[in-house]
Amino acid sequence: MEVSIADVPPRRLSIDEYADGVLAGDRTALARAVTLVESDLDPDIELAAQVLERVLPQTGNSRRVGITGPPGAGKSTLIDRLGLHLVRDRGEKVAVLTVDPSSPLSSGSILGDKTRMHSLAAEDSAFIRPSPSRGHLGGVARRTRETILLFEAAGYQNIFVETVGVGQSETAVRSMTDFFLLLTIPGAGDELQGIKRGILELLDALAVNKADGQNEQAAEHARAEYENALRLFPAAANGWTAPVLTTSALGGKGIAELWQAVLAHRAHIEQRGTFAVLRQAQKLDWMRQEVMDGLQDLITRDEKLMILLSELENLVLSGAVTPSIASRRLLSHVRVSNE
Amino acid sequence: MEVSIADVPPRRLSIDEYADGVLAGDRTALARAVTLVESDLDPDIELAAQVLERVLPQTGNSRRVGITGPPGAGKSTLIDRLGLHLVRDRGEKVAVLTVDPSSPLSSGSILGDKTRMHSLAAEDSAFIRPSPSRGHLGGVARRTRETILLFEAAGYQNIFVETVGVGQSETAVRSMTDFFLLLTIPGAGDELQGIKRGILELLDALAVNKADGQNEQAAEHARAEYENALRLFPAAANGWTAPVLTTSALGGKGIAELWQAVLAHRAHIEQRGTFAVLRQAQKLDWMRQEVMDGLQDLITRDEKLMILLSELENLVLSGAVTPSIASRRLLSHVRVSNE
Repeated sequence: MEVSIADVPPRRLSIDEYADGVLAGDRTALARAVTLVESDLDPDIELAAQVLERVLPQTGNSRRVGITGPPGAGKSTLIDRLGLHLVRDRGEKVAVLTVDPSSPLSSGSILGDKTRMHSLAAEDSAFIRPSPSRGHLGGVARRTRETILLFEAAGYQNIFVETVGVGQSETAVRSMTDFFLLLTIPGAGDELQGIKRGILELLDALAVNKADGQNEQAAEHARAEYENALRLFPAAANGWTAPVLTTSALGGKGIAELWQAVLAHRAHIEQRGTFAVLRQAQKLDWMRQEVMDGLQDLITRDEKLMILLSELENLVLSGAVTPSIASRRLLSHVRVSNE
Repeated sequence: MEVSIADVPPRRLSIDEYADGVLAGDRTALARAVTLVESDLDPDIELAAQVLERVLPQTGNSRRVGITGPPGAGKSTLIDRLGLHLVRDRGEKVAVLTVDPSSPLSSGSILGDKTRMHSLAAEDSAFIRPSPSRGHLGGVARRTRETILLFEAAGYQNIFVETVGVGQSETAVRSMTDFFLLLTIPGAGDELQGIKRGILELLDALAVNKADGQNEQAAEHARAEYENALRLFPAAANGWTAPVLTTSALGGKGIAELWQAVLAHRAHIEQRGTFAVLRQAQKLDWMRQEVMDGLQDLITRDEKLMILLSELENLVLSGAVTPSIASRRLLSHVRVSNE
């Protein structure tokens, strides 16, 4: 079930109202807290920080699952079925987020997500939240990470983060999730053309979807091919071998098996003691990313520096100066102030 | 033939002496210019910038070939043979650089490179230069990029950049070269464990080396496996399909064929008009990298900020603050100064 921003009055709540509401799993409070986290306004940013600090001790325990795949692979249908499996068969709560830096937050896209996952959207234990709008990937990623924390504090055991594969969004989603799944369909590899190069080697699982009807044999063939290919890749440091499965999201085939792979992965890293390490690494990685994004913003938000940058880039392209010199000239305008 | 820094007196030359010497292909001037580019001293940095600006119009035309591979794959022997092929059979000049952020510039490592590529090291048309020492990858990468420019200005048509695969060095080498080759040996994939995950999908060619004697069949088998695997990867934007070859660097087998692949790749991107685009993209990427490294240096070179960073990281790890807040506190000490 979805609460769109149209349902949420713009009035701010108190820190306690937000935090207590979220911790109690109240859907309206949760929706308002997410809207707060997504806001660009300075008082909202301050308030959101305080709300997050309040709920932070209750976060970090969900299964964070990142999902990517080419358009048409059936990501929405798969998430819909996987979500229903968790809600109905396992009695758990599910949140679905999307990282799509290019999409404006329009009622269109909300309706879009609702339509795309119509069965799951009707469930009380499911919450579908489209990508926060506006701004570069850094901003979108930060809001998604904070939204994950809110849902965890609200008792959601399972968080799906879908990436639409624009620019670096797959890398961002992978860095904020525990388990990264690529969904594809049978074919000669052409269907992966939209996928960021290098991502195949970072998967925790690959599923060949639409393994139904006359596609079934082709899907099994593709599965075997991917399995052979992945075997040649450098192994993950945690010793996990990415399984390659077939699924039919429409027919519900392979859905429970796919979820077993997510659970097996979690058990694997918990047994090795690397789950805690992963959570700590995710925090530091998030912080490093925020620092780098913030430093970049110093330049991109300064009109004079942006003009200078563009002049320097032209000098570099024309071969008049080296990139190192151009960079040094630009950075002479940025200082550390130790007050 | 190698000129080690021991042969180069520390006296600085004039801009013209450096630039004219480099442009004339004078080995001693070239060695001194490289040493200048590698220096950390402020007057050297200033002088190096002026020398580079003088020679910049004569740069950008070489074949920049990046080479990675696990230890023991035979990279040095392959570069040795490939270099001899270019020098002796094709009458061209060859420079060999190494990106190894961890290695100190010791006479040991110079002797090491000389020994590793002993036949090539004895050639007048070859110049083997080990990794510039000290500092993080950013500094090493900058110096290597500038050294590439010096060799191009000195008329070297072929520049090999070998990466030892430490940290992000493979990504750095790939971004500064036109053609990225992975050298491996027959086996069950275990030999790639040291290789950065994600790099397989970014290759321009893969060569299975040591395809000699009783290894020959295993090498051909591995070649076929890699060829199948690479076929499943998302294709490169420029339409190039990475060939998978077998070589025997020791026996000289497949060396000429490998070089044909480098030439075919260059012809491919020149025909599509993407070579010029690539050179421009490399310049902008270099500049972007320098800006990001420089911004990071603002923090890492400030003792107080490094202490603050470490305190904030502890707060983040203990769950007391979110990474976004911690990052904002750190960045409040960095300002744009518009004088």
